Amino acid sequence: MKVEIITIGDEILIGQIVDTNAAWMSRELTQCGFEIEAITSIGDRSADIIKAIDIAFGRADILLLTGGVGPTNDDITKHTLCQYFHTALEFNDEVLKNIESIFIKRNIPLNQLTKKQAYVPVSSTVIQNKFGTAPILWFEKDNKVLVSMPGVPFEMKASMQDDIIPRLKNKFQVSEYLSRSCIVTGISESALATQLAEFELQLPAGFNLAYLPSLGYIRLRLSVWGEERLSEIKQQARKLKKILGICFVSKGEKMPEEILGEKLRKKHLTVSTAESCTGGYISHKITVVPGASDYYEGSIVSYDNLIKEELLEVDKKTIESQGVVSREVVEQMASNVAKKLHTDCSIAVSGIMGPDGGTKDKPVGTVWIATLYNSEIISREYNVGRSRRENITRTANIAILQLLKMLKN
Amino acid sequence: MKVEIITIGDEILIGQIVDTNAAWMSRELTQCGFEIEAITSIGDRSADIIKAIDIAFGRADILLLTGGVGPTNDDITKHTLCQYFHTALEFNDEVLKNIESIFIKRNIPLNQLTKKQAYVPVSSTVIQNKFGTAPILWFEKDNKVLVSMPGVPFEMKASMQDDIIPRLKNKFQVSEYLSRSCIVTGISESALATQLAEFELQLPAGFNLAYLPSLGYIRLRLSVWGEERLSEIKQQARKLKKILGICFVSKGEKMPEEILGEKLRKKHLTVSTAESCTGGYISHKITVVPGASDYYEGSIVSYDNLIKEELLEVDKKTIESQGVVSREVVEQMASNVAKKLHTDCSIAVSGIMGPDGGTKDKPVGTVWIATLYNSEIISREYNVGRSRRENITRTANIAILQLLKMLKN
Repeated sequence: MKVEIITIGDEILIGQIVDTNAAWMSRELTQCGFEIEAITSIGDRSADIIKAIDIAFGRADILLLTGGVGPTNDDITKHTLCQYFHTALEFNDEVLKNIESIFIKRNIPLNQLTKKQAYVPVSSTVIQNKFGTAPILWFEKDNKVLVSMPGVPFEMKASMQDDIIPRLKNKFQVSEYLSRSCIVTGISESALATQLAEFELQLPAGFNLAYLPSLGYIRLRLSVWGEERLSEIKQQARKLKKILGICFVSKGEKMPEEILGEKLRKKHLTVSTAESCTGGYISHKITVVPGASDYYEGSIVSYDNLIKEELLEVDKKTIESQGVVSREVVEQMASNVAKKLHTDCSIAVSGIMGPDGGTKDKPVGTVWIATLYNSEIISREYNVGRSRRENITRTANIAILQLLKMLKN
Repeated sequence: MKVEIITIGDEILIGQIVDTNAAWMSRELTQCGFEIEAITSIGDRSADIIKAIDIAFGRADILLLTGGVGPTNDDITKHTLCQYFHTALEFNDEVLKNIESIFIKRNIPLNQLTKKQAYVPVSSTVIQNKFGTAPILWFEKDNKVLVSMPGVPFEMKASMQDDIIPRLKNKFQVSEYLSRSCIVTGISESALATQLAEFELQLPAGFNLAYLPSLGYIRLRLSVWGEERLSEIKQQARKLKKILGICFVSKGEKMPEEILGEKLRKKHLTVSTAESCTGGYISHKITVVPGASDYYEGSIVSYDNLIKEELLEVDKKTIESQGVVSREVVEQMASNVAKKLHTDCSIAVSGIMGPDGGTKDKPVGTVWIATLYNSEIISREYNVGRSRRENITRTANIAILQLLKMLKN
């Protein structure tokens, strides 16, 4: 069943907000077996909304609209839908009751503007909004469905999960979407594609292999529709893992820092970081995962060389002879931070993120990464690129994956 | 001039990535005087791309496409554009040279698959991609423009800023967009709207005041079209600043960490951070600004209490009596990190980011922030919210702004 998502609101078109609703809805719907055909964002203008609905009904069976349903004058979705479906508004007591109960919970008086939310199109089925005042409206036309819902993320998500997705599953027969993902590192996208050319050719009909490059790693996703293909996808995933060899890091949809966290928790290990060029970003990535305090102790961000000497006790002579971006320096950083913070593992990085600071020998993008586990240190040099912000992210991901690989073995 | 943005990629439709490109492009283009008519996301299927282009040419003058331009088989935008514009591919030596220079910098061998990126449509104007292997393609048709560019955010952004926006401005006459922005803190959006109600009413015709809430602060943007209104907007901006009083932090479009960096550099001051709950994110924000090494020395991320005691010398008895999330603890952290890292200023934070760890007295979202400048310490308690990732960002922004306010005085 094909779905088109239409997000409505001038704030999207002027770039004031990032449309995270569409991504969330796409992920949820895909996993339930629906196929997203297109996502369209348009402004709060009646003619544009009608045109977008016409286009969408031309390519999809289910139209999910978010936004433009607030109580103020600039919200026109409901009126536009009345026009589109040739229907009128009528007062709905159930909606008013729902609105009143919400205002009682918030302990604020109900105003006239909000009461207008209880007017709903005659030809729509009304679904109550548990967390807001705008009702969800469900229309049917030629066995196709259009649902209008609020743009407020948590109101939309609750309605989708509790009401809309169950109703859609009930109305439309959907085939199951099967997928197997994994994280791959240490290989460029094009080299990987070359390596997997034969594998792709032998894939059974209906199978798809997607390359999803991130900064510092590539996620591969093998997918097929239909639950009857479960044993086939399992077999292909095993084959893929074998071909990938040492480039394969981990299966699943999780982020590298989440996988690292799980691994550390399972093995009862702790970790610390000593960061120079990444300026705390590795530490941030690790600690954004809920429960990171179970295994993460802390970091010394030694942006200045003096801090490397004083707090991390990196030998001044080593810095002078080898340079601050060198194997010897990151190895001392990794070793000393683990000692000082009493951890089993550590990550240390030093590099040149740009735009300035590069030399002929060590251009912008040069990074040394050392990872320590069980008193063993692995240190490697990378060239991560040219753009400062991307370099920081890429370095952090590579560093986390380098430690993850050590823990695997 | 009306613009439609078309983002191409299955990864968008299955909800694997949030489309941040479209929001960035919309913001930049709006500020240059272009009007975004619609944003459409579609998958890597030729027929869908052609249909989306047809629809878009029906409602816009400029079509900006991102994505589907990688070297692998699932990237089909270039071939589809050949089909759409009835043209063929030809080998372009300049593009190959550009690709080769990128591979040389990265120090990896160039493979055949990547070389294929140097084939470009005959009828397109080629713009070199400074940071990637996929060239930017510019097509014209009936005085309308279609530009195909990579979906990799930093490649897209660089091309947009350096090449595409200047060329679009050159080709299409756009009326000048005048704007004055500022950062406001310490007030909720609704309280701010109430405070500014009268100001908004007296604004001359054509003026718009936008509220752009970020985590921890609100950006206000006053705008009007037409260069002849310059003196008017200057006058209104002065009036606005006066009304905002102590809530006004800084003018301009820059991020708080950029403004902090400029201020520190100008005053020849240095800064360090001692982070607990933000886990290195403040340090990351400060160091993502190019040239941060001029004023930033480093951070001690003391996620574990023992690290607070050992590395930051926070008194164990203070932690026991006041709790780790307390005025006394963050003041010791701010004071000791400045001493240890020999800096003029410092930022220290301790709080509960959730989802766990909250108590009745100190619920999730409780944060203490201390900032130090000129031996003076200001410390304040905040409640930043319920969601872990947002709490970290909000805390980091508030902390940076708290120090910025001290430096202003």
